[in-house]
Amino acid sequence: MLIKKKEINPLDKKVIDNIRGLGLDMINEAKSGHPGIVLGAAPIIYSLYANHLRFDVNNPNWINRDRFVLSAGHGSALLYSILHMVGFDIKLDDLKEFRQIDSITPGHPEVSLTPGVDASTGPLGQGIANAVGMAIGQRYLSEMFKNNVIDFNTYVLCGDGDLMEGISYEAMSLAGNLKLNKLIVLYDSNDVTLDGNLNISFSDNIKLRMESINWNYILVSDGEDINSINDALIRAKSSDLPTLIEVKTSIGKYSKNEGTSLVHGSPLEEDDIKQIKEKMNIRDIPFQISGEAIDYLRETTSSRNDKEISIWMEKVTALTEEERELLNQLNTSKAPIKLKDLYYEIPDSNMESTRVTSGKILNAIADSYPFIIGGSADVSKSTNAKLINYPNRNINFGVREHAMGGIANGLALLGLTPFVSTFLSFSDYLKPSIRMACMMNLPVIYVFTHDSITVGEDGPTHQPVEQLIALRSIPNLDVYRPADANEVLGSYKTIFETRKPSAIILGRNKVEILDSTKVNEVKNGAYILKEENKRIDCIIISSGEELALALEVSSKLQEKGIDVRIVSMPSIERFEQMDDDYINSILPENENTFVIEASSSYSWYKFVKDKNHLFTIDTFGTSGNYKDVLEKYNFTTKYIENKIEELIK
Amino acid sequence: MLIKKKEINPLDKKVIDNIRGLGLDMINEAKSGHPGIVLGAAPIIYSLYANHLRFDVNNPNWINRDRFVLSAGHGSALLYSILHMVGFDIKLDDLKEFRQIDSITPGHPEVSLTPGVDASTGPLGQGIANAVGMAIGQRYLSEMFKNNVIDFNTYVLCGDGDLMEGISYEAMSLAGNLKLNKLIVLYDSNDVTLDGNLNISFSDNIKLRMESINWNYILVSDGEDINSINDALIRAKSSDLPTLIEVKTSIGKYSKNEGTSLVHGSPLEEDDIKQIKEKMNIRDIPFQISGEAIDYLRETTSSRNDKEISIWMEKVTALTEEERELLNQLNTSKAPIKLKDLYYEIPDSNMESTRVTSGKILNAIADSYPFIIGGSADVSKSTNAKLINYPNRNINFGVREHAMGGIANGLALLGLTPFVSTFLSFSDYLKPSIRMACMMNLPVIYVFTHDSITVGEDGPTHQPVEQLIALRSIPNLDVYRPADANEVLGSYKTIFETRKPSAIILGRNKVEILDSTKVNEVKNGAYILKEENKRIDCIIISSGEELALALEVSSKLQEKGIDVRIVSMPSIERFEQMDDDYINSILPENENTFVIEASSSYSWYKFVKDKNHLFTIDTFGTSGNYKDVLEKYNFTTKYIENKIEELIK
Repeated sequence: MLIKKKEINPLDKKVIDNIRGLGLDMINEAKSGHPGIVLGAAPIIYSLYANHLRFDVNNPNWINRDRFVLSAGHGSALLYSILHMVGFDIKLDDLKEFRQIDSITPGHPEVSLTPGVDASTGPLGQGIANAVGMAIGQRYLSEMFKNNVIDFNTYVLCGDGDLMEGISYEAMSLAGNLKLNKLIVLYDSNDVTLDGNLNISFSDNIKLRMESINWNYILVSDGEDINSINDALIRAKSSDLPTLIEVKTSIGKYSKNEGTSLVHGSPLEEDDIKQIKEKMNIRDIPFQISGEAIDYLRETTSSRNDKEISIWMEKVTALTEEERELLNQLNTSKAPIKLKDLYYEIPDSNMESTRVTSGKILNAIADSYPFIIGGSADVSKSTNAKLINYPNRNINFGVREHAMGGIANGLALLGLTPFVSTFLSFSDYLKPSIRMACMMNLPVIYVFTHDSITVGEDGPTHQPVEQLIALRSIPNLDVYRPADANEVLGSYKTIFETRKPSAIILGRNKVEILDSTKVNEVKNGAYILKEENKRIDCIIISSGEELALALEVSSKLQEKGIDVRIVSMPSIERFEQMDDDYINSILPENENTFVIEASSSYSWYKFVKDKNHLFTIDTFGTSGNYKDVLEKYNFTTKYIENKIEELIK
Repeated sequence: MLIKKKEINPLDKKVIDNIRGLGLDMINEAKSGHPGIVLGAAPIIYSLYANHLRFDVNNPNWINRDRFVLSAGHGSALLYSILHMVGFDIKLDDLKEFRQIDSITPGHPEVSLTPGVDASTGPLGQGIANAVGMAIGQRYLSEMFKNNVIDFNTYVLCGDGDLMEGISYEAMSLAGNLKLNKLIVLYDSNDVTLDGNLNISFSDNIKLRMESINWNYILVSDGEDINSINDALIRAKSSDLPTLIEVKTSIGKYSKNEGTSLVHGSPLEEDDIKQIKEKMNIRDIPFQISGEAIDYLRETTSSRNDKEISIWMEKVTALTEEERELLNQLNTSKAPIKLKDLYYEIPDSNMESTRVTSGKILNAIADSYPFIIGGSADVSKSTNAKLINYPNRNINFGVREHAMGGIANGLALLGLTPFVSTFLSFSDYLKPSIRMACMMNLPVIYVFTHDSITVGEDGPTHQPVEQLIALRSIPNLDVYRPADANEVLGSYKTIFETRKPSAIILGRNKVEILDSTKVNEVKNGAYILKEENKRIDCIIISSGEELALALEVSSKLQEKGIDVRIVSMPSIERFEQMDDDYINSILPENENTFVIEASSSYSWYKFVKDKNHLFTIDTFGTSGNYKDVLEKYNFTTKYIENKIEELIK
């Protein structure tokens, strides 16, 4: 469809050029940053903020604001520039502190640090998945609240790099499947990447690609033509499919090196900045913005948004008291879950795999807590992470682990509590998005099942060995590895008390539900499962499926007159944040402290005096019946019992 | 294009059904496995092996064989079945040991364990990337050797799950960009995944998707119609683009639960197997194969392949002696690199970032070693992992880290030595494929730059903290974190001596080239950088950029009368495999052993008595000038010097 070219309003152009100038000043002052996208994509971000995006500068966390995710996070100077211009609480002094320590204008956008930033971004591709999560969450919430109280759009600005990343393909393919029509991606298409011209590595036909995954595609062939960008946004908003608007831009517009990778990632030279500002007809005084431009922009955005806000307030008024309370809970992310409702009935057999227990508990939580939503990467039948009675809260992610992680982050950014699930071996696939959840401190629950070599027949590719330490070492992630149903229940209780990013690691095989495991001790990370009789000859720390083995070893050792204390440690992170008294009461200094856990030794050196005290595994597993596999790797009562006896003599 | 339907030869049908029966018997015997793909995709794998695939059952590693990657690795029973049938050295007894411990028929295919298996697979999507790597490698090798000595095709069998994974999109997008026409993907398209019908999560238009990334697309609408599959393969082989052949199949063909996810991942019931075999008109005696079928198949394949082999032998004969020697080196993966040629000139300033040194050394290696090939995920200008004088050995991976990892594995499986590169923070994106490289013991070199919080302004998303331990904990991966140019050189020398999967971790900033670092000690993992004067009051272990800090701390401590030994430990893995005498000579038992490394503490507990002895970082970093960031996290001479003084008193 041909769009007739209209004249650009000179005032619009003036604001855009001021955004550009400000971005350049920030980068120049910081001596660090990415000018290419600032110059190239300013008209896009301007069009969006000036004429479409719904926001409240006085209430940046307004629940029904449109979301904007800068997936191309290296364009932070562009984002901070427009946020300042439209009136968010970001001062010129903050812009002068761009990329400096302890500023609110860091190198890549960080949510909860900067007003108006809706997601932390930087690692490419992930912002698109976050936005898909927001659009999924919006749809769910719009069903929960009447009157279109939650009817926001989600916008993304992305670049070539985002679209090359597999996670963006995964997330967009799912978005197409779900027809997420309130999702709009603005693609800053400039044909240049860091290593040179785009076509040396990327020649997708974007239109066909979008159509192949059920997206609406609109091309804006001139990135300076804000009228066309506006028209495209209008059409996108009325589409019944998600929309990608490809805007052909020129990286580093106006620079001497415009259109080349030279302008991508480092400050421009002084004389280049000078001539750019001349071309744009703005004064070369750093951080000086045209008052006329700023007034024009703020008038445009506030008149539109004031209207939106008051319409919304009326909608909220029309809600019931109960609904308003629910909305408030969502908005403050403080929805209390009725923890005592986490009732769990022990099966008659007294045997249950922890993945099965987990499924039951997740479903029990869902009964009393409407903000839990999630699913699995096409293995819900194996991980049991599926809400049986709530089809509208189950997300069929498909075999797309990385997108699943990124989508969970988007859901959590709305105030929802997402759970996502796959086999622990494949936690690697979503590690980059787990890291982002932890950086943003989002209450995402990772349900990783089929831990360890006890997976058996599926062999080394499916037997996690090093995944536990990979997770435990991620800052701000709490990892739980419960031994049985009691500890699974205790893990979930703690997760819902702390509301921190948490991974719960579950087994494939049926295990006995032990008399001695304790639901309410899990929150302390570790506790004494079995007291010594008189004196501590040795301490055995264990977790997960291996706890039962530790009990067997201990009873054999007791027969031999070796007095054993067994410590169950479902969560190292929780234990380490307890006070010294507690820590010493559970784990007094003892030369003879041992650990049994069928995973990498790296997790456990901190608790023992000698590497021989670790019954762990530092090689890949093997295919076979899990009992044979355990034997091959010396996870047997006999072996460990003898070894401990030998070592403490 | 309409293909006229031809009659299926009854003998072909008989072989196919015998493959199916054998697969079912294996799964039944193992009480574990995936019958759905065995029944559904048998005609595909049969068509390929019977009529197209070039192989030598007596020489499974023939360098010019066609490659076949079973990306849907859970179909291992199908693969082992056809491999046995065509005559590879896999006995019926091996098939009876399917998925049992220490058998050559593990749960998922493992290269170098089973003759005829060209890649270890299982984690979905990766096999496609491996195949793209093989096709890239084939193209490179075909330029190196005359006479089409290396002219094989690479085939893949994949399922829906593979195509949902982001890595497959990434790899295929690059393959389209590179027009890898000798790559053919057979897509077992059965509209069912583990969690139910495919359309609950996946509704890509595959034809459009393929066209959007410059692939040739062929549809075979009836998966039982081997004539159409054959025709499609013939057309694919003559295409000037990579080809995806979508074969519409029925999962669990002939089962009572055909066409549902019930037949995907566990053995069928006895009576179901019985009626399937009845339908197929084969006898229900486990592991009994029709002699007629096997004769027919072996005659077909050996007559074709014998011809191919003798044609190839003639081509080889026509090579020069030198070329034949080169070919032999490639085939045996034993190509000696002239290590003494790793000459490296120290710059006048005596200052150089390790990433810059690395780039120089990689280029020096390339001069003498034709089998090194690689590139970076669109950051070669920053990581310096680019072969300046060898454009045909540089792969522009684009911003596709995960595909890059999978492609490297494919290159290495051909006998090449690939290097791949990105920022250490983004090593997470390719972790799943690093794991596979280590499992296959492939000599892939990971060049990860921009280590640690010293990345500075780009902030926490770009500052690796937990990535080092994530890598160090992967079994069979050697991780090197050199301190300066000398140690970078030593790292590369060791990597080319050991030819193991190796990661070299490099810094962004210029560092001094130290007098005391030693090229030839790196192979031992750790060495004494600075001897104590008289007695060891304390030992400081350090690596990377922090080694210079350790030297400063040490000189301050010496001033205070504290006698310090400094140990440089570029590689924990190398050090740990030294003998006890060496280990004790470098690191004698000492209460006052400290570590300085700006990464997760988890790597280092094993070397110290007390967690307070670790100067490490267990939180995310922050955006700011790197000197400010170091100070914020206490990586200063003053702080560490005082702390050590305090602790050893």
